Amino acid sequence: MHPAAQVGVNALVSPEGSLEVLSQHEVNRLKDTSSNGHHEILRRCALAVLSCGSPLDDSKALLESHPDFDIEVLQQDRGIRLKLTQAPSEAFVDGEMIRGIREHLFAVLRDLVYVSNEIEQNPRYNLNDSDGITDAVFHILRNARVLRTNLQPNLVVCWGGHSISREEYEYTKDVGYHLGLRGLDICTGCGPGAMKGPMKGANVAHAKQRTALRRYIGISEPGIIAAEAPNPIVNELVIMPDIEKRLEAFVRLGHGIIVFPGGVGTAEEILYLLGLLSNEENQQQPFPVIFTGPADSHEYFEQIDHFIVTTLGEEQRSRYRIMIDDPAGVARAMRNSMEAVTNHRRQHNDAFYFNWRLRIDPLFQQPFQPTHDAMAALQLHRNQPVHLLAANLRRAFSGIVAGNVKESGIRAIEQHGPFQLHGEPELMQLLDALLQAFVSQGRMKLAGKAYNPCYRIVT
Amino acid sequence: MHPAAQVGVNALVSPEGSLEVLSQHEVNRLKDTSSNGHHEILRRCALAVLSCGSPLDDSKALLESHPDFDIEVLQQDRGIRLKLTQAPSEAFVDGEMIRGIREHLFAVLRDLVYVSNEIEQNPRYNLNDSDGITDAVFHILRNARVLRTNLQPNLVVCWGGHSISREEYEYTKDVGYHLGLRGLDICTGCGPGAMKGPMKGANVAHAKQRTALRRYIGISEPGIIAAEAPNPIVNELVIMPDIEKRLEAFVRLGHGIIVFPGGVGTAEEILYLLGLLSNEENQQQPFPVIFTGPADSHEYFEQIDHFIVTTLGEEQRSRYRIMIDDPAGVARAMRNSMEAVTNHRRQHNDAFYFNWRLRIDPLFQQPFQPTHDAMAALQLHRNQPVHLLAANLRRAFSGIVAGNVKESGIRAIEQHGPFQLHGEPELMQLLDALLQAFVSQGRMKLAGKAYNPCYRIVT
Amino acid sequence: MHPAAQVGVNALVSPEGSLEVLSQHEVNRLKDTSSNGHHEILRRCALAVLSCGSPLDDSKALLESHPDFDIEVLQQDRGIRLKLTQAPSEAFVDGEMIRGIREHLFAVLRDLVYVSNEIEQNPRYNLNDSDGITDAVFHILRNARVLRTNLQPNLVVCWGGHSISREEYEYTKDVGYHLGLRGLDICTGCGPGAMKGPMKGANVAHAKQRTALRRYIGISEPGIIAAEAPNPIVNELVIMPDIEKRLEAFVRLGHGIIVFPGGVGTAEEILYLLGLLSNEENQQQPFPVIFTGPADSHEYFEQIDHFIVTTLGEEQRSRYRIMIDDPAGVARAMRNSMEAVTNHRRQHNDAFYFNWRLRIDPLFQQPFQPTHDAMAALQLHRNQPVHLLAANLRRAFSGIVAGNVKESGIRAIEQHGPFQLHGEPELMQLLDALLQAFVSQGRMKLAGKAYNPCYRIVT
Amino acid sequence: MHPAAQVGVNALVSPEGSLEVLSQHEVNRLKDTSSNGHHEILRRCALAVLSCGSPLDDSKALLESHPDFDIEVLQQDRGIRLKLTQAPSEAFVDGEMIRGIREHLFAVLRDLVYVSNEIEQNPRYNLNDSDGITDAVFHILRNARVLRTNLQPNLVVCWGGHSISREEYEYTKDVGYHLGLRGLDICTGCGPGAMKGPMKGANVAHAKQRTALRRYIGISEPGIIAAEAPNPIVNELVIMPDIEKRLEAFVRLGHGIIVFPGGVGTAEEILYLLGLLSNEENQQQPFPVIFTGPADSHEYFEQIDHFIVTTLGEEQRSRYRIMIDDPAGVARAMRNSMEAVTNHRRQHNDAFYFNWRLRIDPLFQQPFQPTHDAMAALQLHRNQPVHLLAANLRRAFSGIVAGNVKESGIRAIEQHGPFQLHGEPELMQLLDALLQAFVSQGRMKLAGKAYNPCYRIVT
Repeated sequence: MHPAAQVGVNALVSPEGSLEVLSQHEVNRLKDTSSNGHHEILRRCALAVLSCGSPLDDSKALLESHPDFDIEVLQQDRGIRLKLTQAPSEAFVDGEMIRGIREHLFAVLRDLVYVSNEIEQNPRYNLNDSDGITDAVFHILRNARVLRTNLQPNLVVCWGGHSISREEYEYTKDVGYHLGLRGLDICTGCGPGAMKGPMKGANVAHAKQRTALRRYIGISEPGIIAAEAPNPIVNELVIMPDIEKRLEAFVRLGHGIIVFPGGVGTAEEILYLLGLLSNEENQQQPFPVIFTGPADSHEYFEQIDHFIVTTLGEEQRSRYRIMIDDPAGVARAMRNSMEAVTNHRRQHNDAFYFNWRLRIDPLFQQPFQPTHDAMAALQLHRNQPVHLLAANLRRAFSGIVAGNVKESGIRAIEQHGPFQLHGEPELMQLLDALLQAFVSQGRMKLAGKAYNPCYRIVT
Repeated sequence: MHPAAQVGVNALVSPEGSLEVLSQHEVNRLKDTSSNGHHEILRRCALAVLSCGSPLDDSKALLESHPDFDIEVLQQDRGIRLKLTQAPSEAFVDGEMIRGIREHLFAVLRDLVYVSNEIEQNPRYNLNDSDGITDAVFHILRNARVLRTNLQPNLVVCWGGHSISREEYEYTKDVGYHLGLRGLDICTGCGPGAMKGPMKGANVAHAKQRTALRRYIGISEPGIIAAEAPNPIVNELVIMPDIEKRLEAFVRLGHGIIVFPGGVGTAEEILYLLGLLSNEENQQQPFPVIFTGPADSHEYFEQIDHFIVTTLGEEQRSRYRIMIDDPAGVARAMRNSMEAVTNHRRQHNDAFYFNWRLRIDPLFQQPFQPTHDAMAALQLHRNQPVHLLAANLRRAFSGIVAGNVKESGIRAIEQHGPFQLHGEPELMQLLDALLQAFVSQGRMKLAGKAYNPCYRIVT
Repeated sequence: MHPAAQVGVNALVSPEGSLEVLSQHEVNRLKDTSSNGHHEILRRCALAVLSCGSPLDDSKALLESHPDFDIEVLQQDRGIRLKLTQAPSEAFVDGEMIRGIREHLFAVLRDLVYVSNEIEQNPRYNLNDSDGITDAVFHILRNARVLRTNLQPNLVVCWGGHSISREEYEYTKDVGYHLGLRGLDICTGCGPGAMKGPMKGANVAHAKQRTALRRYIGISEPGIIAAEAPNPIVNELVIMPDIEKRLEAFVRLGHGIIVFPGGVGTAEEILYLLGLLSNEENQQQPFPVIFTGPADSHEYFEQIDHFIVTTLGEEQRSRYRIMIDDPAGVARAMRNSMEAVTNHRRQHNDAFYFNWRLRIDPLFQQPFQPTHDAMAALQLHRNQPVHLLAANLRRAFSGIVAGNVKESGIRAIEQHGPFQLHGEPELMQLLDALLQAFVSQGRMKLAGKAYNPCYRIVT
Repeated sequence: MHPAAQVGVNALVSPEGSLEVLSQHEVNRLKDTSSNGHHEILRRCALAVLSCGSPLDDSKALLESHPDFDIEVLQQDRGIRLKLTQAPSEAFVDGEMIRGIREHLFAVLRDLVYVSNEIEQNPRYNLNDSDGITDAVFHILRNARVLRTNLQPNLVVCWGGHSISREEYEYTKDVGYHLGLRGLDICTGCGPGAMKGPMKGANVAHAKQRTALRRYIGISEPGIIAAEAPNPIVNELVIMPDIEKRLEAFVRLGHGIIVFPGGVGTAEEILYLLGLLSNEENQQQPFPVIFTGPADSHEYFEQIDHFIVTTLGEEQRSRYRIMIDDPAGVARAMRNSMEAVTNHRRQHNDAFYFNWRLRIDPLFQQPFQPTHDAMAALQLHRNQPVHLLAANLRRAFSGIVAGNVKESGIRAIEQHGPFQLHGEPELMQLLDALLQAFVSQGRMKLAGKAYNPCYRIVT
């Protein structure tokens, strides 16, 4: 049983931004791309951005609740238009689409088409190579116009769960508010919870400070966007082609990272980050990382801290700072760190808008497909270098995210049952304890639903 | 016993806006004005805008909680600076004043000095005359730069209580959100509750719609500002010299009015508005007025409606529309009314930014000093023309507001006991019932305090 | 015999800028002011700005060539309009007034009305007192919005003749070009010749340098504007009430002064400047002054230099620098001096936009009416302090300017014959020689007309 | 004998605009491209834009006068810099490059690299195909950011000679002035004479009209830029790869065309335009064309008109209008035509910024290499369709331009003697007469040099 199909809106929408001036050839390719192989993915992502007010975090359920929704690219001499059929009515005000949502819709189209036409089909990008992947990430971001010169380092990436308690949510808003008061901009993965709170808080603070340029950057990917639709406050939206490039975009764009409480997705992000910062070549670079939450969340970070130290070793602690119940303190620490970042980039003649110097091991760049086989084959033991273990744990968490909220993952679990995770018993126990804690704290799914695990720890 | 004095901040602050370029003569006058007769009023208003985060709605309590706060105008060849002593720390971020608050601080200074130096001491303004008063209102608003050409009518004045329920507050945000989605700007009397909610909602909507020019106009007066400090979202603040000019500013600036649930202050505003719209000369003019609240507030509006009809007559109903639990509907109705307003102004070659054509009886313009004698002498009976009764009822409510939240009023009540209101028994009963309802619904004071009436109905 | 009356345009024109938002009272006063006592002066000034393309430099002739031109202020609820009758057609393009000229037209109205209503009738300005006059100058400039904060000192005042040779004119353009290349803005007295050339040159340079804010400030006065109509490149026009306040505006606004070859008007300006800089209290202040012209003009500056040294003494030479045939050098020197000016203002906390610190003796501030009696009574001998002699010589030159080009002066000469100038024989000889040189070099009137002296040296 | 080598400036210059954000890969390619195959062309074009004040119109002479000038692309993590050696000093003010020239320098780099890397090496563009060529033209223009949405049709292309009389030059300024007064923007081929005059005139008019957006578009190509360096007023510069794409850029970008007197280059443009407008498919489209010049140039247009009618037929006259000595009339006619263009584009849903609908025969798109053989082989007779004859005549003129001013052409003529042109005797006589007239009127080379023909008519 899925939610009842809703009454939708039919509309023709004109583009803004980079899709305004197209050649006839481009219009044709765009029509083709969007009507052939990529039509389904476009439809899914478009539905996500149009449903930003929806309380669903389940891609499959969202699609099933709008079975008749469709999207088509129309050609005109003057450019293109999008024809929407049975689109969610909450995207419209008195028949006109909300402008922020319209921007998101065309951002989705822009990025899907760019990746398909300019990256994947272009021999120039060697996507098996570390530099080639980074180059692709750079070009997707530049094409989306998020690489801006003349801005001082001030972009704080906020990670954390989409399903968090009211108290935690208010805390993320409060941190965002204090970041905004200090002129910092926000980048998150879109979606509700810890991805939305900091932007809402910063938006109020920016208004109070009369900040002229206010950036709320959302970075998503096709598999996750339906579960984590961009709030319309997001005023720069990018759809990266996969989770690994999305993670790379975060760490190359952002000048500091704040981690709020969250579930497996957040754990994936933490493992990615620590694996990467463990790299010898990244030791010299200032890269501020703060774990923070309200007073009642202190236990959560103790669990995370314990898991990190026990799996990856004590020295990881030098890479993050845990600050509990101190929104202004967190913001002040971030603001101060920006100077170190600025000075370091200046000294090395590095760009402010893209962290070229960060070294990312291909292990963290290669897309991981969480099939049942791939999940079962993960090497989960401590008898390997730290960055390898971090990479494998990252993949394990990534697979569980897919099983929880991505359409493909959900279908695979429906078909083949839960993923099986094997490994060193002690490590598996640690993992199990962490995952159990996530479940019992309600971090796996949006409130109001019982969580049915998509994985099984096999010790 | 009053709240413990808080630790404050000492700071030097430079002006922005209209006080940036001053002659030496003006600097001197400004120093004099602010240090002599007007120092206390400047200190009080400044403390109010600096305390915008404070939960107090009692001017006296606020002042008593910051006994050492002081403000002084310093002269420099390049202009002026404000020297603050023991200022509330919540106005600062890491030692720097929040820019929105700084703007408010200088708006206060600007308006107090302008009224004192340019209006009150200037023989050109005959403040005993209707046209003279309107002229003064116009000049104060123009000097504050809120009269903007080239803008279409889109300014919605929102009235309602500062002490309202959580549900009502969320409703005012929701209405503000739907107004903002439709490109409408907001004007309120500053302060918490129904004065803040619509602005917060509109701020989010304006962000979603990428609205370039976002106006959140706050109109206050020296007696009320401490109880209703401007939220920093207010980006155009004006301090009118008294409550009557503040009311006139609302109706000449705004293009439509929404009334949310509230207490005596809101009742005062309703009586003012109906008295004024009852004037023959204002019949032809479109002037949209909507009373609205959440489902649970329907009773409130029934009481108000009943009071209006019984006191001022059935025909008043043509001047307002009651819409319950319909934020989008209210916003849509307002949006649609803007066209009628625009067309009417166009036809008559009227300005969009100031409603010159509205006729306001001097009864509603002359400042009313709510002394015990004046309150006792009010003619409260139905044996007089409708607009006279409306004017007297307005004064009665105005006096109660003063007794509740203004410093002078509170002190007078402390000294002489409650105001005595006399009048026609049936009318007094109606009045009593309405006031009792306000008390029992907690609309008289901010939550958490028992209300001790500052008036007595003598029948 | 006067030039044939031309065919004119009838038009209704709406205001821009400060006259857009007026109270009904202000509209009435403006109508009164412009239709009663000040109508003729408004008509004359308006005709001047509308005739900016005309080759006449004779106010009387200009007026006589447009006998039917008229201007009237119309009232509307939304504000005012100007009704023009038989206006010069060169101010219009296909029936619409050129926007720059429209701005000038309303600048004229703005300043005439402001001076009449806010300065002359306001007891606050003591126009017999030095500080009172300076205060009035400040307010007229601020009301005209030429006092801008946040700009570094970069305003170069250019003085020089309206009737100069082609070679000299090209040279003034060249200097303006090199000033503009270095980011300097231009202020002149409006009109042709040396007042127009620097602006034209700077306009090209600013375009090449993509300068965002380009200021071409013109400062005129009602008596001279007809002879020296503002070129439409002027984008900030101010009409000061008399020649003395115009001179004060130049020296308080400008950060440096360049003097090109010119006639009696230029001589008046030089005497004013040197008299003022001779004041003890102004010695410490950097005030760059450069006399410059093309190679062929070197003799001109030798004459001026000789006259200055012989009359006011050798030490005057420390106050100016003569640079011949070196546009880039002049611009470079000015650019470099701006730093000294900036530092000095910073050190003394002085405003950048108005030189309050400059001390001006009342002798140079009091309006001088060049009647035949007043001219005959001038004390022209060296047996007096230097600044007194400078002041008297300044008045002598000022009177001759009036006799040459101002309507009132021309009429007085027509009636009573040339002015008689008495004084110390040697000094009178020097003066005579200088004036003869101006005549023989064609600097007294626009080319093509024989000059009939309006003065007689009586030794 | 060539001009003496001048003293130059060594400088490091940072980019603005599209070259600010580059990937490391792009920086490398750019370095390679600019240091290998394309270094010489980059050096030549760079020298041209840096020499914009030079009076030379001979590419070879320009290069020879700066034998030591060099340009190199340097890499930095933050991007690129250009290292200039012995650069012409007139491009600098006190050691800093004039900003307009800096923009031109990077525009040259941008376009050369884009054409080389993205067009020529990209299989997607079929440069043998009409649509493919148009697509390339579109992309070069879009990459240069000259395709702007939201602008109404208002772009007037001005063609005419670089070597014209003073009177003609003043006339082109006057026409530009009247175009600018009417809000029209200017596009020319860069260089002196008729390419510079209209921009200078429009610049003054735009200043008078306070026009906010002022476009002075220059379209050049590597072979011609040295002879026709862009005046720094040009604020949008594009370097098309060859003369045919440059011509296509003119007709697809512009909304109307004005032809001033000129020499063979202008004749080439006229033939191109008429050939193209003769196409059946272009008949329905409004495409305003005006030939204009001062009174003394009427004979010139009679010659042109006679040549056109005699060679291409009487019906060509419907495609242009000759207006002599009427700058305001020309501007008014252009302004009026813009409405027809706007309406036509609206009706057909065509873009305003690029004329996709114009049909251009491949004959006019294929680059013509004017070798001696190719010139000798041209079919110059009237026994062919009109558009074929137009195409061949266009090529003949194009070859003579190359022989006159392009480096490659000049060298070829030095080596092999003049081009030989064969054809139908009567036609050849017409051609000869026209060319003789150009020579005798001094239209072949900048004034002051005797013209030595680079062609020979063989009948």
